[in-house]
Amino acid sequence: MKFYDCATAPSPRRVRIFLAEKSIEIPIVQVNLASGEQFGDAFRSINPDCTVPVLELDDGRHLSEVFAICQYLELVYPDPPLMGRDAAETATVTMWNSKLEWQLLAPLADAFRNRARGLKDRALPGPEPYEQIPQLAERGSKRALSFLGKLDAHLAKVEYLAGKRFSIADITAVVAVDFAAWSKTPVSDELIHFNRWYQQVSARKSMGA
Amino acid sequence: MKFYDCATAPSPRRVRIFLAEKSIEIPIVQVNLASGEQFGDAFRSINPDCTVPVLELDDGRHLSEVFAICQYLELVYPDPPLMGRDAAETATVTMWNSKLEWQLLAPLADAFRNRARGLKDRALPGPEPYEQIPQLAERGSKRALSFLGKLDAHLAKVEYLAGKRFSIADITAVVAVDFAAWSKTPVSDELIHFNRWYQQVSARKSMGA
Repeated sequence: MKFYDCATAPSPRRVRIFLAEKSIEIPIVQVNLASGEQFGDAFRSINPDCTVPVLELDDGRHLSEVFAICQYLELVYPDPPLMGRDAAETATVTMWNSKLEWQLLAPLADAFRNRARGLKDRALPGPEPYEQIPQLAERGSKRALSFLGKLDAHLAKVEYLAGKRFSIADITAVVAVDFAAWSKTPVSDELIHFNRWYQQVSARKSMGA
Repeated sequence: MKFYDCATAPSPRRVRIFLAEKSIEIPIVQVNLASGEQFGDAFRSINPDCTVPVLELDDGRHLSEVFAICQYLELVYPDPPLMGRDAAETATVTMWNSKLEWQLLAPLADAFRNRARGLKDRALPGPEPYEQIPQLAERGSKRALSFLGKLDAHLAKVEYLAGKRFSIADITAVVAVDFAAWSKTPVSDELIHFNRWYQQVSARKSMGA
């Protein structure tokens, strides 16, 4: 296997933490998103969406999309399980990961990409230009803050996002929160349950990945 | 189990087709989205996101998020498999399903919800009001049409979206395309490979669900 990464981007970091939790070591190729390497023919033949992360399998096939890459790794390296141990736990982990992608990561990406001066006409990742929509940046921050409030209430009742065990949902949430600072959407100190969870989870060795 | 549905909405239809493909019959409860039943206290205690579909498990727990619900059903009723048979196939199905959610369904939802007269200040599902952003409706249609062109090129090379076998990715795509008519983003006749696939897949008995 080979992993196409960008050390500064949030999406591939989710996979790097997942790999570190499972102690999987594979060759890593850095893709220089700042210089536009993802739009060149070489990388476009690896992933036509021009995004990282990408996992290259030993037969040469390429997988993109964070959750799909992690699912492959989970099936090939099941220990420790990070995506659930039975049907109900697996679906609960997937549900929380999905809520986090749609209600936290995506709004934060809206907030970041529709504001950043360097991303004029690049409001979405991928090969096509889309102009920034300032209203979408504002809406993104508002939605993310609203969802963080809901997570705070949820984390008053559970240790980890999907229940009793650390999972991919916690990884997604830590990466989102660390990205929030770049999205002008900082997390309030008043969210005490959320901050308890963040302190606990972000202290894991894997989070340095 | 019990299934919270809305017969006219695209997201629960994805699960209804999935259930039909597996010949699973469970009690169905209709939630009246048009009258705002999803915002009432009764449904809010079932899903605080105020969205359908929701699957109620026999122990009383509730699962939301289409992919998570389908994953639970796949693990409990594995035949016929609709989410892959080995690690690489499973991850490939998940990857295509994810691309379809982010690059087709979400843009179509943007196109629909930011234009519909009945959805003023309801540009997103869920309990909080968000005003419509006309630029986002336009961008949604443009993105969906661009992605359909890519799917056409992909379907020139494969029978089904994730390869040789019908999967949840095909279900997501059929539901998206049928929803496109409501999003003022009709699919062009010129996409011959895409239309070949659509004719083939939409003729399945399950698609009436």
